[in-house]
Amino acid sequence: MLRRAGIVSAMSAGYHMSTEDFRRHGHAMVDWIADYLDSVEERPIQPSVKPGEIRARLPARAPEQPEPFEAIARDLDDIVMPGITHWQSPGWFAYFPANSSPPAILGEMAAAGLAVQGMVWATSPACTEVENVVMDWLVDLLALPQTWKTTGPGGGVIQMSASDSTHMALVVARHRVTARGGRAADAVAYGSAQAHSALEKGARVAGYEHIRLIGVDAVHALDPEELRRAITADLEAGLVPAFVQSSVGTTGTTAVDPVRTVGEIAAEHAMWHHVDAAYAGTAMICPEFRHHQDGLELVDSYTFNPHKWMFTNFDCNAFYVADRSALVDTLSIVPPFLRNPATESGEVIDYRDWHVPLGRRFRALKLWFVLRSYGAEGIRHHVREHVRLARELADRIDLDDRLGLVAPVPFALVCFRHVAGDAATERLAAAINASGVAHVTPSRLEDGAFIRVSIGQTHTEQRHVDRLWDLVDELAPPV
Amino acid sequence: MLRRAGIVSAMSAGYHMSTEDFRRHGHAMVDWIADYLDSVEERPIQPSVKPGEIRARLPARAPEQPEPFEAIARDLDDIVMPGITHWQSPGWFAYFPANSSPPAILGEMAAAGLAVQGMVWATSPACTEVENVVMDWLVDLLALPQTWKTTGPGGGVIQMSASDSTHMALVVARHRVTARGGRAADAVAYGSAQAHSALEKGARVAGYEHIRLIGVDAVHALDPEELRRAITADLEAGLVPAFVQSSVGTTGTTAVDPVRTVGEIAAEHAMWHHVDAAYAGTAMICPEFRHHQDGLELVDSYTFNPHKWMFTNFDCNAFYVADRSALVDTLSIVPPFLRNPATESGEVIDYRDWHVPLGRRFRALKLWFVLRSYGAEGIRHHVREHVRLARELADRIDLDDRLGLVAPVPFALVCFRHVAGDAATERLAAAINASGVAHVTPSRLEDGAFIRVSIGQTHTEQRHVDRLWDLVDELAPPV
Repeated sequence: MLRRAGIVSAMSAGYHMSTEDFRRHGHAMVDWIADYLDSVEERPIQPSVKPGEIRARLPARAPEQPEPFEAIARDLDDIVMPGITHWQSPGWFAYFPANSSPPAILGEMAAAGLAVQGMVWATSPACTEVENVVMDWLVDLLALPQTWKTTGPGGGVIQMSASDSTHMALVVARHRVTARGGRAADAVAYGSAQAHSALEKGARVAGYEHIRLIGVDAVHALDPEELRRAITADLEAGLVPAFVQSSVGTTGTTAVDPVRTVGEIAAEHAMWHHVDAAYAGTAMICPEFRHHQDGLELVDSYTFNPHKWMFTNFDCNAFYVADRSALVDTLSIVPPFLRNPATESGEVIDYRDWHVPLGRRFRALKLWFVLRSYGAEGIRHHVREHVRLARELADRIDLDDRLGLVAPVPFALVCFRHVAGDAATERLAAAINASGVAHVTPSRLEDGAFIRVSIGQTHTEQRHVDRLWDLVDELAPPV
Repeated sequence: MLRRAGIVSAMSAGYHMSTEDFRRHGHAMVDWIADYLDSVEERPIQPSVKPGEIRARLPARAPEQPEPFEAIARDLDDIVMPGITHWQSPGWFAYFPANSSPPAILGEMAAAGLAVQGMVWATSPACTEVENVVMDWLVDLLALPQTWKTTGPGGGVIQMSASDSTHMALVVARHRVTARGGRAADAVAYGSAQAHSALEKGARVAGYEHIRLIGVDAVHALDPEELRRAITADLEAGLVPAFVQSSVGTTGTTAVDPVRTVGEIAAEHAMWHHVDAAYAGTAMICPEFRHHQDGLELVDSYTFNPHKWMFTNFDCNAFYVADRSALVDTLSIVPPFLRNPATESGEVIDYRDWHVPLGRRFRALKLWFVLRSYGAEGIRHHVREHVRLARELADRIDLDDRLGLVAPVPFALVCFRHVAGDAATERLAAAINASGVAHVTPSRLEDGAFIRVSIGQTHTEQRHVDRLWDLVDELAPPV
């Protein structure tokens, strides 16, 4: 009998990795990650692989029989690593940061181990309630309106990306037009010409047939007079202004749209007013930046990415609505008469009604870990340090005859060009990136090419920015 | 000088957890996960917390100062764990499984450590190419059409959920209507009355004003004659049939719609034909189930969830299109004249144009780990074992005078009721769930209540299903 039980147990274990083996490989993986974090600064940031090179090293068919994990781990080093772009290098100044941090990685691990589905409160109450709490914490940390807490009429939810949140806001705005008897085909969405492409993409996905990208002023911020004129023209054409976005920290140059003025215009026309603070939202943890988002009481939805500058692994986008019923009414698949008393009373939140996907990981864990491990003061410290480094770099550029700033530096993005023009600017960016120790993004405004230097990777310090400046100084040709 | 460097280094480390501390806490977290996996079977599956109970144990404000990770880990045990629903218990028979497995957890860890963004090929080539490869592997493993490989005109991409994929397919179908000169407001989407609510939700989000839920036959599969009649009526009303979904394994009862017949109808009217095989897709790794999806050459898009039954942690939804240009033309934010030669030549794929979000995690790693760690034979073994256990349970139910099956068992979902009616059925489900050792889903069809038993959790074995049967046998009242 004992023998039979043994056989059954061995058979039934089947092809699963045992927990003993998981423990062993898990410890090795933790060391692998720690070694990676310790060595990432020494690695050339951009890999040199050509299209198809990684693929060519992988078999065309999945294995029929199990492979030992040691073989998989070896291929992670030998095949995958040569094709990795090192976003976590402290020399990463490209795009905006997509930061990880040790507590966030630990949070991802815990979430993967529990592997719960938080689609509704009942399918794992802690998944919903920890998310409620950390979203409410952020309301206080960023000085967002108190009514945006989940204990009030609004609320915050974690989505995958700011693109998802912006798309959701566009869908709710379109739904409001039809709910008022208008035609979806007449709805118009507005944002600045410097708004993230997520606006245009989200509007297209949501079926908007009219998208207006409004002109900007000398510092690349939306021109409210031009917005007014566009709205007037659309009203005269019989269209329905439905949605307007204010960007607080555009992707191009971190320009700041006039949130209050846009909010007043939106209110005049009963439009949905969405704020995209994907990158800059994190800075609001420091009171000295909050004047950039003055007017939030005139905002219907707001999005920012803890997965950018708040040391929380992607995906962790925070999406707030001033009135969650507008969102839930649009997305809930349960007709109103079937809603349960707990949901209606506000006792529980069923996050499935807050976004397109039904299933959801326990993403709040990593954010909870980060906020507690750093404390508000820890995050403020590093944000301020990044901003200080950015302004120092901007001063150096400003004093150099070969270089010119192309935009103010309200946060930690420095935009500059070589005065000799596009070719010199593009060559300079390419030369910096070829160094392997620093990575910047070549970009363009209407008046020509420029270089984006985003200072904000988790471990970027004075010495990394100094090294970048030495590179710029050495590589920029004389005028 | 040395002293100064020391000070700078200590200061600049700031509030970050050191890699030494990460190593220590990471090892402890691996052990915590392993202990959890070893003990999950002993835990009552459904927590007993009331709404607000977890929240009440958390402070109303984030800490100002950093907290030691030991305190956070303690709260994970003391505050979070009492609010966890144990989806990874082998007694989990509720909903469909949302499986994790040791290799998938290791994959999540590696992805969190690298923390790269795969929005376009260039931002981390390995992230895109490993995804290309595993998506192509699955084409062979599931016997999908060869043209769906990324090396052909089609291709696969990892999305968050089947809801996202279905929404995407609906958006592409709507876009095709307007591209042909039709009006989005006239587009009609069809699916069976037993289709997942993601169809209705996705269609609403995509702005469809006409959604037809078609009647089903005696085994809950879409009735193609009713579909034809609905299409004819809509055409006569001047509307544009745009999208039709075949479900292969509905959520309610794993009913299988007639894919080939629906595909023929779709082709007649130039409609987009989408297959939702969210749960059952995994079974296609075994040739004996493939007759259920006969007709895939008449399909435009297909979705299934490795994060359900393929032992890969959520989120990992696979979305295939027969012609990727339809998807990219709809979603690409770069006008055609700006597309780069590498993208156009098919040398690289930029996955940002395949879904709403721009940023993307390296989700292919965990699927790559799973497919290699189990091997195709390992996955087949466990799928077949789950199906065998389901049919054995169905036989037991069928032989019991108190109970009746309400649907065939094509895969591993058993749907049954107590013959005494709704009240007895609902009480039985509640009693099973109150046991804490097994968890089922009470559900409803038009003719009344029933109990869904989904056999497919990673570690569910004979003894767990036997225990469930013992519970049913003990708790079901006599007739």
